[in-house]
Amino acid sequence: MTTRRVAVGEPILGANDRLAQQNRDRLDAAGLFAVNLLASPGAGKTSLIVRTIAALAPRLRLGVVEGDTAPVTIDADRVMAAGSPAVQINTGGNCHLDAQMVAQALPQLPLDGLDVLVVENVGNLVCTAAFQLGTHANVLVASVPEGDDKPYKYPAIFRGLDALVLNKIDLQPYVDFDRDYFLRGVALLNPGVAFFPLSCRSGEGLEAWVDWLAARSAERHA
Amino acid sequence: MTTRRVAVGEPILGANDRLAQQNRDRLDAAGLFAVNLLASPGAGKTSLIVRTIAALAPRLRLGVVEGDTAPVTIDADRVMAAGSPAVQINTGGNCHLDAQMVAQALPQLPLDGLDVLVVENVGNLVCTAAFQLGTHANVLVASVPEGDDKPYKYPAIFRGLDALVLNKIDLQPYVDFDRDYFLRGVALLNPGVAFFPLSCRSGEGLEAWVDWLAARSAERHA
Repeated sequence: MTTRRVAVGEPILGANDRLAQQNRDRLDAAGLFAVNLLASPGAGKTSLIVRTIAALAPRLRLGVVEGDTAPVTIDADRVMAAGSPAVQINTGGNCHLDAQMVAQALPQLPLDGLDVLVVENVGNLVCTAAFQLGTHANVLVASVPEGDDKPYKYPAIFRGLDALVLNKIDLQPYVDFDRDYFLRGVALLNPGVAFFPLSCRSGEGLEAWVDWLAARSAERHA
Repeated sequence: MTTRRVAVGEPILGANDRLAQQNRDRLDAAGLFAVNLLASPGAGKTSLIVRTIAALAPRLRLGVVEGDTAPVTIDADRVMAAGSPAVQINTGGNCHLDAQMVAQALPQLPLDGLDVLVVENVGNLVCTAAFQLGTHANVLVASVPEGDDKPYKYPAIFRGLDALVLNKIDLQPYVDFDRDYFLRGVALLNPGVAFFPLSCRSGEGLEAWVDWLAARSAERHA
């Protein structure tokens, strides 16, 4: 780590965005496709990662940066048990990852041996939306039991998405979730965003998501 | 609204805590019991409020302050349709309520005619934990489909709770949720916290929660 001087009055986001660009350059040099994975707590980010690792192997190799507010390695342990390298970032109670945290994690991963990098952000639909990390795409994992009003209540995070996963579709019969209402809200904020309804529990719908990820990775290599 | 001067260098939380104390004094003068209701997005805070309004009526009158990051009135409309006065706070994208926002909302409610006030915070398990509002109790709504690891991953918010609601227990048969593991995590952080497993959908378990709330309200009147 090098010490970095920040001019008094310099906007914090400006400093973050410059570090994000340095992360992007490093990821591009490694030929990786990198995803900033966003969600509420408990929507299924880690379950999606574990399922994706299994679906991509042995074609494509996936690495993971795990952001957590507490010094627990539950998620990183699950990822490593699934066969992928993972680095844990403890934000020390902070509510989002920033580019500096990701910059510290990247040298701990074998970037040149990976095809896809997933940065699992802190479970939070508000603060995470405001910080660029240097990744190529923002992907949100929403989930059926969270309810169909999330685009209306947390619009900022939906506006910046490159893909939207709707997890836990196996629970649809047991809850009140109007998918048309949900998608109308999404369309107002982000028309045409790639949409992947799926269930990490049953496996239904995973293929389309994995194909999208593999295609984006292939574009980086091309 | 009055203008308030803050000395340069004054800690933000110090200023917030003084405003929270002013809110508390106002709530105490009205003989209210006030709850800061916390949760992830989609855990069921508003559903719990709507169920609680119906269960308390006509014995006890409940008022609501609704915190939202966007200028949508979905939650406030639901509360008013259930027959209770509600005030909407739009945080302008901010990730938590603070004492100043609550201080602005309180004069818009008929406090002297209420027995219980619920302040529905922004859906967020991290940032909301750090700001006192002046309420008498912190109550978290966790939910079964969010998973059993939340106490381990978001310990700060669990430490400060006076009561813990576990919503959506009707979904237990369809998800992997180990209640013993969940409660072991809770016990490490907050032994003896009041615990209310319930379903806002089926109504199961609501009575114990409503009784707890009514008893706390009666204590304020005594």
